[in-house]
This record gives sequence, C-alpha cells and structure tokens, in this order.
Amino acid sequence: MASVEIVTIGTEILLGHLLDTNGGHIARALADHGVDVYAKHSVGDNADRLALMLEGVLERADGAIATGGLGPTVDDLTKDAVARAVGRELRLHEPSLRAIEERFRSFGRPMAENNRRQAYLPEGCIVMENPHGTAPGFIALRDDGKFIACMPGVPREMRPMLAEHLIPWLVERFGLREAIYTRTLHTVGIGESDLDRRVEDLFRTLENPKIAMLAHGGRVDVKVMAKADSPEHAAAMIEPVAAELRTRIGSGYYGDDETTLPGAIVQALVRRGLTLGLAESCTGGAIADEIVGTAGASAAFRGAIVAYADAVKTALLDVPETILASAGAVSEETAVAMARGARRRLGVDVALATTGIAGPGGGTPEKPVGLVWFALALGDGEMETRRLTFPGSRADIRERATVAALGLLWRRLERQAQAPAAVP
Amino acid sequence: MASVEIVTIGTEILLGHLLDTNGGHIARALADHGVDVYAKHSVGDNADRLALMLEGVLERADGAIATGGLGPTVDDLTKDAVARAVGRELRLHEPSLRAIEERFRSFGRPMAENNRRQAYLPEGCIVMENPHGTAPGFIALRDDGKFIACMPGVPREMRPMLAEHLIPWLVERFGLREAIYTRTLHTVGIGESDLDRRVEDLFRTLENPKIAMLAHGGRVDVKVMAKADSPEHAAAMIEPVAAELRTRIGSGYYGDDETTLPGAIVQALVRRGLTLGLAESCTGGAIADEIVGTAGASAAFRGAIVAYADAVKTALLDVPETILASAGAVSEETAVAMARGARRRLGVDVALATTGIAGPGGGTPEKPVGLVWFALALGDGEMETRRLTFPGSRADIRERATVAALGLLWRRLERQAQAPAAVP
Repeated sequence: MASVEIVTIGTEILLGHLLDTNGGHIARALADHGVDVYAKHSVGDNADRLALMLEGVLERADGAIATGGLGPTVDDLTKDAVARAVGRELRLHEPSLRAIEERFRSFGRPMAENNRRQAYLPEGCIVMENPHGTAPGFIALRDDGKFIACMPGVPREMRPMLAEHLIPWLVERFGLREAIYTRTLHTVGIGESDLDRRVEDLFRTLENPKIAMLAHGGRVDVKVMAKADSPEHAAAMIEPVAAELRTRIGSGYYGDDETTLPGAIVQALVRRGLTLGLAESCTGGAIADEIVGTAGASAAFRGAIVAYADAVKTALLDVPETILASAGAVSEETAVAMARGARRRLGVDVALATTGIAGPGGGTPEKPVGLVWFALALGDGEMETRRLTFPGSRADIRERATVAALGLLWRRLERQAQAPAAVP
Repeated sequence: MASVEIVTIGTEILLGHLLDTNGGHIARALADHGVDVYAKHSVGDNADRLALMLEGVLERADGAIATGGLGPTVDDLTKDAVARAVGRELRLHEPSLRAIEERFRSFGRPMAENNRRQAYLPEGCIVMENPHGTAPGFIALRDDGKFIACMPGVPREMRPMLAEHLIPWLVERFGLREAIYTRTLHTVGIGESDLDRRVEDLFRTLENPKIAMLAHGGRVDVKVMAKADSPEHAAAMIEPVAAELRTRIGSGYYGDDETTLPGAIVQALVRRGLTLGLAESCTGGAIADEIVGTAGASAAFRGAIVAYADAVKTALLDVPETILASAGAVSEETAVAMARGARRRLGVDVALATTGIAGPGGGTPEKPVGLVWFALALGDGEMETRRLTFPGSRADIRERATVAALGLLWRRLERQAQAPAAVP
C-alpha cells in the first residue's frame, strides 16, 4: 500500500483568500485507489519552508503530491524547492518549451521571457503534459525511489492531469489493482431518520458494495461504494443495490450523480408535455432562479410572478383582498389563491406557490418566523397544500423553502407518473 | 515575533467532504496581529499521526493551533494526542463538567456519559469557555513554554473563542502591540483596470495604511489596511484614505465591510421613498432573489415578473408582439417595453428589465451566447439602456448579468441623488 501526503502551495491558500478545493479532490481520488493519505498541508510562497516541508513528507510517506506555484512569476518557487528536496538540478525541457511557445502562437500573443522558466524541470523527471495551460506537471524521483509530483494549482488544469497521468502512474508503480467506485442516489422530501429506517438493514449488512448517507440543506444523498478492479465490475456490483434502494426510497428519489433536482423536474415536465409557472412571495424568485439555471428550461418553464407586496398578489395573481384581510398573506387560503392565479395568468398546466415569513422580523406566536405555506395546482381543481416551518437565518429559511417547494413538485410529478389516469 | 502552525483535525476535512474555512480564518486573524503563520495542516481522525504532527510543529514553531476532534465520540481523539505531545495527563476539569451539565439541563435533555469525556483536559492547561457548545477549548503548555491551543471545529463556536480568548492570550504572552486593521470599500460597475488607473498613485505611494484590490464576479473591492496599536488609531489612519478613495471611485462605490449591494440599493430606495419592480427573462428571478435576500426589502420592493416565455412578456408585461417579431426577444426594444410594462403592471417608481441569451444553445453571429440587454425605467419617460456581453458558462453569464443589473440600478440611484432635480 502506497502512502502520500498532499501539499498545496501559495500564500493566498494559506491565508484562506482562496479556498483549497484541490487538496480534498486529490485526497478522495487517491483514497478511492487505495492510497493511504496521511495528511494535507498548505504553505505560503516561501522556498525554504516548502523545501523543509517536502523533506519532512518524504521521511514519513512514499511521496508528496503538490499543487500550485508553477506559474511564470517570481512568487512561483515550487520547482526550486522540489529540486532541492530530491537533490536534482533544474534543466530546460525542450518539448515543454516548444509546447508553451506553440500555445502562445495559437493565441496570437507574444511569449514573455518569464514563461521560458516554466519549461525548466528537475533532471530525470517524468513530465505530465498540460493541454489546458502553460505549466507542465512532473514527477521528480529521489535516489531512494521516493517521489514528489507537482501539478498546477488551477483546478481545470490539475484535475485532468491527475486523472490521466498521475493516477495511472501510481496504479502502475504501486500495483494498485482495486479502486473504489461510487454511485450517488439523490433524494428530496424524506428526512434523514426516515430514510435511515428504510435502508438500515442494508447499511448494517452490506460490505462491498457498502452504503453511506450524506444530508445537506433539505436533501439526503445515498452513496453506493464498490471496491473493484474495473469500472465494469464495479457497475455490476452497484446496479442491483442501487435498484433495491430506488424501490425503497420511492418518489423521493430524483436521480444519480450529476443529476440536479431542477434538471430532473424540467425533464419530467418535458416528458409529459406539461408547462410550469410559479407564484413566489417569501422565496422571492429563488425557485425560478433554480429552474432557469437548468439548460433547456424553456421547453417547460413559462415564467413566475414574484408577488412580494400584497398589492401585487391582488393585481397580478387575483388573490381576493378578503382572503388577505381574513386569513392573512401567510395562509393556506392565500397560497391556494396564488397558485390558481399563477396557473391562469401564466397559462400553465402546473403552478407552484409559496408564501411565508423569512424573518428576522414579522413573526407572531401563531405565525412564527420560518413558517411557509406551499400550494401546488395541477389540472382543474386539483390542489395540494403543505405547511412547513424551517429553523435558522433568513437565508437558511429561504433556501430550505426553495428546496422543499422543488421537492413537493418533484414528488407530485412522480406519483402522478405512476398513476396515469390522474394526469391533467 | 511569535510563530505558529495551524492544524485542522478530522477525516471529513482531510478528504474535502467538509471544506476547511477555519484554517484560513485563523491564519488571517493571526497574521493581522503580527504572528508568523508558517503552515496549515489537515490530519484525519488518527491519534498517532496527530501526535506526530503536533510534535513536528513544536520543533519548528512557538505553538500549534488546532481545531476539531473535541466532540464526545470515540473519533474525537484530539485531547489524547495533545496530552502526549505536551507530556501531561488528562484530568477532570470540574467547572467545565458543571458547564456541560448546565447546558444539557437548559435544553431539558439528559446528558450522555460520553459528554463527561469533554470535561477531561490536559493538566495545568488554560481553559477557554465555550458559550456556544459543549466542548471547552484550552491552551496546553509544554515544559519548555511551547503551546498547543485547541478549539472546537464548528466555526460558530471557534470564531468567538479565537477572538475573545486565544488572540488576547497571544497578544499578552508575545507582547504583540500592533495589529492590522482592514476597511473594505465595495465597488460595482467599474472594471479592475479602470479602477487601478484611478487609484494607481495611492497604490504605489502609500505604506501604512496601504491599499489592495480584489476582483470577484463583476465587483471589485478596495482594501485599506493599517498597522496600528489600537482600533481607534487604525480608524484615524484609515478614514482620510477611505474618503479620498470614495471621491475617486464616485458612484460605483456602494458601501464598506458588511454592506451588500442589494442591501445598499434597498436603503437608497427607502431613503428616497421609491418603490422597485423587476422584469426578468434570462436572469430568471435571480435579481429578485438577491433583493429579497435583504432583510427589510419589503419597504421598497414590490415584486417581479419573470417573463421567460415570450407569451408571458406579451400577456403580463404588454410587450407588443410586433416588437418581438421584428427586433426579437433579446433586443433593446424588448428590454425597454419590459421595463415600461413592469413599471405599470407592478405599480412601481423604478423598474429594471433584463433579456439575454444565457446559453449554452440559442446564440447566433449577431446575437451570441452571453449577450444581455438591460433597461431601467425611472419616472415617466426616463429610460436608460445597456448592452453587455459576458463570457463563461450559463451559470457565469446569469451571475454576471445579475450583478451588472444591480450595478446599473445602484449607479443610477447614486447619480440621481447627486442631481436632486432629476428625481422622479
């Protein structure tokens, strides 16, 4: 089993002006391949401290994986420190210089003298090409076989280099035959403890593949992780478990891996030839924003009326003033009237309405901050309502309400898909 | 000058399932007080590796500052490792036990036996109370005077403990008299290079306070940083520079520090007794979402019409079909008609409209992906329009367009405030 430590380089990351996403990405990818990741370090742009750090890593682990500090400026000291740590000189690498020159030519820009520096690499290293930027990556080897791999800090350049060059090299060198492959099943509208009850026996008994849950902002993901020697074997191990999970989760399941909730909703609407409109008060455009964030939303989404003021609820959604006066703006009656109004005014099949108290002010004992009413109108006369109360700040409440509204819509569309007679 | 290294503890952070924001926060706060932060490390929940790491830190620096691993579960191994690294036993700290018991009593919940573990601390340590959670923090001292400070990993618990206990202790112990105090001036609608030209001489000549620029997503911040021995002296040094900067920036300046752009807009509208409405196409509710995210938005904001489909532009914003047919949905004429329609239909003083091509499909040579038209209607017949083209993904384009729309609105309100006769 190989062991490594990860080093991210740059004062901006050390001081948190830039959030480090590279370290976690590399650690997960390596752990998935059975590499033991001991630790992750950040150092500023200081060649002495970096060299000391790298020497320390090579005392404890088989290798160091570093990102950042390969740019053309004087701050970019990584290569000097690496050369010292492995005891090699920097030498001009002609193919890298030609690749950098070619890159500048293709952009029609003159190459600065500084960029030549980027083609100097530790003698005897393995070069990793960078088709997405000027700085090549490399793996420098010390006489005792320990290594330091260096990649650019820009995630768009680092990630393909890791996947296409560094991981295959590690797999080969350390004979790593097995990797962990993950499928993520996304759910909405089911509480973590409810979901736990439904899958608890699998959670307890399965070993390979095994499952895990991750809750975030009103959604819960179920991960199925298989250790296997190829993607094909992993898929064959994962698929039956995923199928069993989908059955148990029911209409709260909305897709795998890269699928988003608004994306799944738009696809379900398009599949069934339905159009969607919204009437938003406390969510204030956030649901519309989520839907429009999906490429191709125009095939189903017509528009939204953000009726923040009561006068707009009356004028554009035809909410009767008598309802606002008797039941109040935050009430089941108002939510229902908003959904009906949106359906008619926007000329859509399905309309979803929200009205609530996002705070921090405006709460009462009967209607506390966090209370939100939802109404979903489908077809003539069909109406579903929901009353929920969310904890947290104004931003938390609005975010939770947005997810809950999308979840309500998704689960209704799924239930109707299973009962075709009820389709409007 | 004191030197420290920061250690964040937990497998979730090592593997990037949780993004580490504590490390950067602590590094910045310490650097501002003249402490030299050598490096930042993450280790998993492994007591041996953690102890080794802490011993390594104490060889290089005056102290280690650790977060995480103070919870009640068996994963929470920080204290065992710290006790080994400083050569002290863990002892029950009675006042901490009573504080934990009291906390459970006040929530009406029984205290688990595990929580007793949280009151065991290294002998002779300095205890840092935690009013926001059960785990107390502490500073453990080694015989040679080097220290390890431990704080909880939850930012809401860690941040006040850092500010109220740990930093004052460091200031006292290392005689840190001077700190860096920062004022951030926010701007919108001015390019980084344009802003650079306006303040370039200050950037070049000022030393204390000095200035720096940070661009992010269509906005540019100008930071004024003073090294001083008290907040009052810092304010006296910063204020004249900030005043000079505000004059040079003009109407693109919208506030300091915690001020947000939508917050500044709502305040400006309220101050002048104006109401706001929106007509959004490609931004799809994102501008409304930003405005409603501001507490107190209801004092000025009435609502929005998200007219994603052309039929909604016609039905709810009275955009003439002839304009949609001749100039197209993405055109100056349509944007103007949308703003006029929103002003009338929502009954507002000021209306802002957007229409554009967010992609990835739908672009043409004349109207490429990224093209957005903006129209701003104030008072009868007053109209300002703007055509901008943004690079990047669908999400990038929509985010940039949202900021640009808010910037256009803010700068217009500011210009009008300086020319009172033009107020509608």
